[in-house]
Amino acid sequence: MYQQIDHIAINTIRTLAADVVRKANSGHPGAPMGCAPMAHVLFSKFITANPENLKWPNRDRFVLSNGHGCALQYILLHLLGNLTIDDLKLFRQTDSKTPGHPECHLTEGIEVTTGPLGQGFSNSVGLAIAQAHFADVFNQPGFDLFTNHVYVIVGDGCLQEGVASEAASLAGHLQLGNLIALYDDNHVSIDGNTEVSFTEDVCKRFEAYGWHTQVIADGDNDLEGITKAIENAKKVTNKPSLIKIRTIIGIGSKNEGTEKVHGAPLAPDDIVEVKKKFGFDPEKFFHVPNEVYELYGQYREKGKAAEAQWNKLLENYTTKFPEKGNEIKRRFSNKLPEGWEKHLPRYTPSDPAVATRKLSENVLNKIADAIPELIGGSADLTGSNLTRWKTAVDFQPQSTGLGNYSGRYIRYGVREHGMFGVMNGLTSYGGLIPFGGTFLNFISYGLGSVRLAALSSFRVLYIMTHDSIGLGEDGPTHQPIETVAGLRALPNILVFRPADGNEVSGAYLAAISNLNRPSVFCLSRQNLPHLEGSSVENTLKGGYVLKECTDAKITLTGTGSEISIVVEASKKLESEGVKTRVVSLPCFELFEEQSIDYKSSVFPDGIPILSVEALATFGWSKFAHANIGMTTFGSSGPYQQLYKKYGFTAENISEKAKKTIEFYQTTPVPSVIHKPF
Amino acid sequence: MYQQIDHIAINTIRTLAADVVRKANSGHPGAPMGCAPMAHVLFSKFITANPENLKWPNRDRFVLSNGHGCALQYILLHLLGNLTIDDLKLFRQTDSKTPGHPECHLTEGIEVTTGPLGQGFSNSVGLAIAQAHFADVFNQPGFDLFTNHVYVIVGDGCLQEGVASEAASLAGHLQLGNLIALYDDNHVSIDGNTEVSFTEDVCKRFEAYGWHTQVIADGDNDLEGITKAIENAKKVTNKPSLIKIRTIIGIGSKNEGTEKVHGAPLAPDDIVEVKKKFGFDPEKFFHVPNEVYELYGQYREKGKAAEAQWNKLLENYTTKFPEKGNEIKRRFSNKLPEGWEKHLPRYTPSDPAVATRKLSENVLNKIADAIPELIGGSADLTGSNLTRWKTAVDFQPQSTGLGNYSGRYIRYGVREHGMFGVMNGLTSYGGLIPFGGTFLNFISYGLGSVRLAALSSFRVLYIMTHDSIGLGEDGPTHQPIETVAGLRALPNILVFRPADGNEVSGAYLAAISNLNRPSVFCLSRQNLPHLEGSSVENTLKGGYVLKECTDAKITLTGTGSEISIVVEASKKLESEGVKTRVVSLPCFELFEEQSIDYKSSVFPDGIPILSVEALATFGWSKFAHANIGMTTFGSSGPYQQLYKKYGFTAENISEKAKKTIEFYQTTPVPSVIHKPF
Repeated sequence: MYQQIDHIAINTIRTLAADVVRKANSGHPGAPMGCAPMAHVLFSKFITANPENLKWPNRDRFVLSNGHGCALQYILLHLLGNLTIDDLKLFRQTDSKTPGHPECHLTEGIEVTTGPLGQGFSNSVGLAIAQAHFADVFNQPGFDLFTNHVYVIVGDGCLQEGVASEAASLAGHLQLGNLIALYDDNHVSIDGNTEVSFTEDVCKRFEAYGWHTQVIADGDNDLEGITKAIENAKKVTNKPSLIKIRTIIGIGSKNEGTEKVHGAPLAPDDIVEVKKKFGFDPEKFFHVPNEVYELYGQYREKGKAAEAQWNKLLENYTTKFPEKGNEIKRRFSNKLPEGWEKHLPRYTPSDPAVATRKLSENVLNKIADAIPELIGGSADLTGSNLTRWKTAVDFQPQSTGLGNYSGRYIRYGVREHGMFGVMNGLTSYGGLIPFGGTFLNFISYGLGSVRLAALSSFRVLYIMTHDSIGLGEDGPTHQPIETVAGLRALPNILVFRPADGNEVSGAYLAAISNLNRPSVFCLSRQNLPHLEGSSVENTLKGGYVLKECTDAKITLTGTGSEISIVVEASKKLESEGVKTRVVSLPCFELFEEQSIDYKSSVFPDGIPILSVEALATFGWSKFAHANIGMTTFGSSGPYQQLYKKYGFTAENISEKAKKTIEFYQTTPVPSVIHKPF
Repeated sequence: MYQQIDHIAINTIRTLAADVVRKANSGHPGAPMGCAPMAHVLFSKFITANPENLKWPNRDRFVLSNGHGCALQYILLHLLGNLTIDDLKLFRQTDSKTPGHPECHLTEGIEVTTGPLGQGFSNSVGLAIAQAHFADVFNQPGFDLFTNHVYVIVGDGCLQEGVASEAASLAGHLQLGNLIALYDDNHVSIDGNTEVSFTEDVCKRFEAYGWHTQVIADGDNDLEGITKAIENAKKVTNKPSLIKIRTIIGIGSKNEGTEKVHGAPLAPDDIVEVKKKFGFDPEKFFHVPNEVYELYGQYREKGKAAEAQWNKLLENYTTKFPEKGNEIKRRFSNKLPEGWEKHLPRYTPSDPAVATRKLSENVLNKIADAIPELIGGSADLTGSNLTRWKTAVDFQPQSTGLGNYSGRYIRYGVREHGMFGVMNGLTSYGGLIPFGGTFLNFISYGLGSVRLAALSSFRVLYIMTHDSIGLGEDGPTHQPIETVAGLRALPNILVFRPADGNEVSGAYLAAISNLNRPSVFCLSRQNLPHLEGSSVENTLKGGYVLKECTDAKITLTGTGSEISIVVEASKKLESEGVKTRVVSLPCFELFEEQSIDYKSSVFPDGIPILSVEALATFGWSKFAHANIGMTTFGSSGPYQQLYKKYGFTAENISEKAKKTIEFYQTTPVPSVIHKPF
């Protein structure tokens, strides 16, 4: 089946990897060299994709979960014509397309950003869910539009990570037959042989999860074996597949099979020997034999043809099923359904007090059918997060009788990190807007994936309820304190803490309209009144004046569940003759993007500002001269008592407001908007 | 073997659990009711502990990993005489000893704080490592001082969490025969039957990890079966054990076996039926039959006697092995070895530039033998974190030939969250100071455990290297941005970012001397010069003047790797006639604890302050009027180029300093120390 040229191609990848890492004087040669055979088998026999349109919806997805081996991916993209040899020479150089770990927002052809171990694997589960979903929703007899597979290469490191365990268990439960993992079983991690810490039976573990498993004893040479195993895996349509492939890391190097070839360039003389061993001229660097370019050129042509055929199929489909066909086109062009935002509920102060988590459920009930690309779930807190809309159907294998693959509600189980990783995969597939729920405190369990959503510019929605000591009796193990500060410090993410119904609707409007960044909703467990002056549109500005007042002596500000208490405090102050403004600040990030003029109108110079938020005060200094907030952990008790204990009362706020006013009678009030640079 | 009284005791626990949760009008009755039989078997037949000295070193450890079921633990502590019936009546009430989830710093007899799922299970692995370690180091023929077992009850939720998977794989590898997990297999989680998301074969998974497994089909009644299984488990000394015990959640309730009994009180009329079913008077609340008190009184006496005997053994041991005997006493009384701090290295500016991660290794090399309770490792980044000291021996099963249980270096594998959870267990055991290493960015993988260390007042050390864009080529997937801000917002934790050798030594001095809080060391990959004016002692103050200057126009401040650049900038400014002060601020938390006078001497009013830190600027407003830092993700490239790209150069700092000075020529300089309240 394989010929001499295939071995030349594999050795081209190996020697090129050695050169790429050497030139950068930094990086990981071992994995690309060891994984070259399985990668070549994948790209030569299995992966159908069009290098000239890397976003073709039905392409097979390839994920390199051991992202440190990305020289492999860049080399493949080069052979397929997507990266130049100069790009390879700029490996790990500032502002190149070939960074130290693959970044999907930077390099076309990279499906997901990997490197932090276990992430790519969990993303691949999301990609597989997405494929199964699109196939079930759109495929029709004679129109197998969505048929792609998801291939993921995964190393020992990834498989030790909890995020991968969570995703693997979920994938087994969901019977994702379209997911095929090639496990690069090279027995080596950074600390040496895996015998020092990783001696479990990986195949048995995956069988326990419900996976199909196979073993290839000689992954360095047995191309036929790898091929047959992948063919077998494709035939098993009701189980994800793990193929354990024994390889030698850094094969060809004098240090092959050891941790020495993992994370540092091979020595120049070692590279000479590698090239000789593989029949390459050691004097040539970054050398690709012409016949290898020709071979990969064939794959390129094959991919082009495949997409052309698919495009024809889609056109015929659209003729026969115009609504569905146009829906596919709409969704993969990232356009939202016309007028979806009209479904967002709006409130007036006479509406009854409701928890913002419940108001979020209201939004989902209104928009879930209007935006069919919404796909979401909860990490086993559905009844608490209120993430399941009325008409929802569970995403489950049909055979379970619990739902089907057209379903859009995912039962993630108690797997926060896995859930967030899966959500990144869902986004990456295209045509989907994933959301996921848990308690705000437990976003900390999955921050590794949250930060990659931000880095990847992925629109995902985190519905985080029970967002402060206001959750009450569950106590400090469940009460977030530091959580929001950490999220506000993260680049390219919107953090919303809405104060009432209009702000919840505004948060959804902003989050769904922001194509290129994730959003976190911090939502209350406790009921909150709808506020005079709150507005959907003003929420889009991140902060706004809720209550204006000429000649005010103080501006009170805050977020979420504390705003109604702030309003109460402002009334108390007014009743004592202290003129008071109130500013709601549901989203720091959007507020900071407003014009200086607007920001100055919200926080005018010369009026001291007191902030109130039942979370860590850390970070509030930039918007307020004095802060009421948490500087310790909370405690377990009814939330009304806790709010009193920690000073979130109109009485304490007005007392502290008066102290603040007094302090600034003898001291100039610094501007929080006008800064040196 | 069991008699009527045992069933009465079990039903007492069940009815009491219903009452406790009902009275609080909040909480989880189902798990305590379902787990009552296994808990009673454990406490009546297996757990040896002395309720009159809950800190006896050789007590068996009991962990309730499904911490939401803590009514069970409180009831057991009541039956054993450690909590009063009034404590039970104050369940989930503010400032009670019986919070909504068990908190070890609050309630004597609680070994570890649980609730966030999977944590208790990973803690139990740490407790088992600690036991194996003490046994190997101190036991002598005829002197089996450390013989205790670790028992953990774990639910479906815990076993779905990645942190538990990581810890379980490690426990199997380490062959921890002293660890026995009772899996409350009740088929129910919050979203309903586990069939919706958790259908893996748990026993098979644990066998793959190297565990011994058993199944009890009727965990509600088969006390003999549970007993025999635990006996079997104790006999298997080279494998941890999982006993899967099928139970009915909320047994006796009309909603038994469903999610309805999981997280809400039973209805009063349901409780009436429960009590009738179990032969209890429905008119009586919080009722404990006298014979049950008597039964548990016997266990109490048994425990007292066991400790008395052990104390005698320890005295004889101390006579025969005075050094070792006194060492045990010292370590369990939380005293540090006399004079350990003299081993801390000190440096002068003429010493060669070194990365702070390397300086941390220097400290470990100096103190590891002086402080034998130090036990640490790395999540498979030993050569990068530099956490292994010269004389270290690996903690490994002797049979592997890789080390032994006396070893103090733990190969955690690529399991950050599991590592941090294990570290909490090690601390909880007593007599140990654990440390663990990974890249700073990947502390995010395990924040769930880090925040519990802080909440639990545990002294653990996080050695976090590669602490900024200064790690260079690995790129933004590995470069922390928001990480330190999130940690600084967390209560009860010290976050150090030392600038040179003396500050690294100071950070260790502070961290090891602080018995009741964890510490994070943020350490550079790149080399840094030793600074004129740096000091071990000043580091203990969190911030100090590195370079004073009368009539200064500006104070430059920052942390870690940026301080030497700040010093360079100050020289540049001085050369241009701009008088400049420099403040090093290695630890915000310690600085904030200093007197107002001291803080004012560091940041005198009237002089503008510019901060420089190659991390998110978020949170710096409280100490500085203008900030140089990161507001985006970093990128992949040589770090010198990145430092230039993002403005961490003497040139940019001095330019921004001049802008800051100019700005404050027309605007009053606000105090960062004097605040309204």
